[in-house]
Amino acid sequence: MELYDLELSGNCYKVRLFLALIQQPYTLHPVDFLEGEHKNDKSIERNAFGEIPVLVDGDLTLRDSQAILVYLARKFNRTDWYPTTPADEAKVVQWLMVAESEIARGPNDARLHDKFGYELDIDTAREKSTRILTILDYHLSDRDWLALDRPTIADLACFPYVALSHEGGISLESYPSIQSWIERIKALPNFVSMPAI
Amino acid sequence: MELYDLELSGNCYKVRLFLALIQQPYTLHPVDFLEGEHKNDKSIERNAFGEIPVLVDGDLTLRDSQAILVYLARKFNRTDWYPTTPADEAKVVQWLMVAESEIARGPNDARLHDKFGYELDIDTAREKSTRILTILDYHLSDRDWLALDRPTIADLACFPYVALSHEGGISLESYPSIQSWIERIKALPNFVSMPAI
Repeated sequence: MELYDLELSGNCYKVRLFLALIQQPYTLHPVDFLEGEHKNDKSIERNAFGEIPVLVDGDLTLRDSQAILVYLARKFNRTDWYPTTPADEAKVVQWLMVAESEIARGPNDARLHDKFGYELDIDTAREKSTRILTILDYHLSDRDWLALDRPTIADLACFPYVALSHEGGISLESYPSIQSWIERIKALPNFVSMPAI
Repeated sequence: MELYDLELSGNCYKVRLFLALIQQPYTLHPVDFLEGEHKNDKSIERNAFGEIPVLVDGDLTLRDSQAILVYLARKFNRTDWYPTTPADEAKVVQWLMVAESEIARGPNDARLHDKFGYELDIDTAREKSTRILTILDYHLSDRDWLALDRPTIADLACFPYVALSHEGGISLESYPSIQSWIERIKALPNFVSMPAI
């Protein structure tokens, strides 16, 4: 398995984190983001969306970090991280979608603006951040993990950009339940970090 | 099963469409969107995100149309619509994520602006529409369905807001492969429509 990767990308990091937690080896291909390597012909051939991460496993080329988490959980039969009973599976998928939508449009967009200079509507990104962080904090006020009574890929999908909120100018000070959840994730066996987490 | 629904929502429609295609009965609860019923206390109790659709099946309450499609496919054992082999499953999930991200930020946002008067950056929504429609059209130029060699929930997830593009001021005239794909979906046995499709 080969992972096309950028160290500073939270989406790449969630894949590296899961592979570390389940102790699976892979080959890392750092992509030269500043040189636009993710947009060159070879990269576009791998992924028409011109984004990273991309996972290559034999004939299979996969884009989207959430889809990659699903694939790895299934490939290595880790139903502890991603169950197969319909209700539990769907509960996890709900939060994969929160990572793909509300967190991407909130703390991730705010960080893209502040840290990487993306031209986007920062006020909207901050408003959306407040909204999703408030929902998350309330949700986590009476449970340890997002989807089930144990950590799942739902937690890993949502974790990076929430934990990186400060790089988008958003403090987690008023979200104590989110802070405890972050500490629980950091305490998982074989946890690995990334810069600023 | 009870579906909290809005007739004009493409996200609600994709759930109704799947239930029609697999011929499963359910109870429809129309939500009074204009009166803000989706934001009242009872609705927020069902779904903290204050959005529809919401599916209630016994003890289970699910939000997010993509998560609901996953649940229904699993509950009714429709591996034809959503496979369980890791590579095929992940290929479908990739496109569920496109529905949740690129299509939501493109044609769906453009329609929210034009048809429902949402205050959002319409230029960005139109740019993102062009980008995702171009990728989709190219992807469909040499295949009939998005993820596999048959229709899956990936097609149903992406279909509504692409087919409703014109309500966001975006013409599909220059995307012939998308047009053929829309016709193939409309020709599926037990297909149901919604206003403007």
